[in-house]
Amino acid sequence: MEFSPRQEEIIKLVKENAPITSEALAAKLGLTRSALRADLSILTMIGILEARPKVGYIYSKNSSIGFSSDYIRSIKVKDVMSKPIVVQEETTVYNAILDLFLSDVGTLFVVNNDNLVGIVSRKDFIKTAMGTADIHKVPVGIIMSRMPNIVLVEEEDSVYDAAKKIIEHEVDCLPVVGKEIEDGREVFKIKGKVSKTSITNIFVKLGEDR
Amino acid sequence: MEFSPRQEEIIKLVKENAPITSEALAAKLGLTRSALRADLSILTMIGILEARPKVGYIYSKNSSIGFSSDYIRSIKVKDVMSKPIVVQEETTVYNAILDLFLSDVGTLFVVNNDNLVGIVSRKDFIKTAMGTADIHKVPVGIIMSRMPNIVLVEEEDSVYDAAKKIIEHEVDCLPVVGKEIEDGREVFKIKGKVSKTSITNIFVKLGEDR
Repeated sequence: MEFSPRQEEIIKLVKENAPITSEALAAKLGLTRSALRADLSILTMIGILEARPKVGYIYSKNSSIGFSSDYIRSIKVKDVMSKPIVVQEETTVYNAILDLFLSDVGTLFVVNNDNLVGIVSRKDFIKTAMGTADIHKVPVGIIMSRMPNIVLVEEEDSVYDAAKKIIEHEVDCLPVVGKEIEDGREVFKIKGKVSKTSITNIFVKLGEDR
Repeated sequence: MEFSPRQEEIIKLVKENAPITSEALAAKLGLTRSALRADLSILTMIGILEARPKVGYIYSKNSSIGFSSDYIRSIKVKDVMSKPIVVQEETTVYNAILDLFLSDVGTLFVVNNDNLVGIVSRKDFIKTAMGTADIHKVPVGIIMSRMPNIVLVEEEDSVYDAAKKIIEHEVDCLPVVGKEIEDGREVFKIKGKVSKTSITNIFVKLGEDR
């Protein structure tokens, strides 16, 4: 179900201040007790809050209330993104592979003055390492996927949209960027990454007992 | 949230008979209208049912009622697993990499008489391709992770447990196996695979409008 902003506020206050009486809740919200009554009774009925006589409201950990699709779509990229590992365009393929192993990631982001210019994945590295090129000499700039042929997301985008892009474009990982104007042209600052691992982590959290 | 058996029954009757008045519902359930009132008002408040004046109750397709953690933990590996790509132990690294690219997967399962004996991932291939070994001669059996050092799941396991194993062991993909006894020893038949991609697909489905 969807909560109203006031219901969300009540749940937050109860989580932080439990046990809390309806008087104290009303005072914190600047409302009368009677204005609160309907919300408190619905939250109690569906098992989010528990009303303990003479004690006050507590947040019910046993609540089996679900996540709505809306809730899932409300999780933002900025809430789950992780640290991107970046290399310069001139980095040799060999050194980039070392970075890949040292950081234990599957994708490196290639930057030029902090601006995203490309992406290299394990797939690119396998192709190159199988070939005849000297990986100690070839720079990643040669083997990377180059902007603008890169699927991007921004911090305010939903993880749901990011997940759809990951599936549609068959990639493991998307760069999270912030658009800026530099010398009259649009550039993309790398802010983070969101990957199938980020989404698997969310899935585990959704399945946890609350 | 969890519905009581009576609430489930009400939802079912409304779905089948909508629009239906509370009198008709009460009659079908063998209850008085007043006995129904509390359940009808909670189902209406949380948006599962919609009360149309002078028409009756209808089931609300826009209801954003969610999935419980229990629901998420009830999704089974067998419901989402995908086809594993297998190679023989004697396959050369070079040919295995070709299989990897042709099937566009990140992990190959190595079998011997249909029994899982190992796993090779993109990481293993990059390491090998960077080294001095002749990938046209070295068999995957040499570079693979070998049983029993492989994290396994079975068809009846939950995807939630599989996701936890993927995160804990920092792997992309798990083989789904069925245990059998062959010549007096336990063997593992490969049935499928479950990967971060499988889980990203579930995440997208959970976020879809229903």
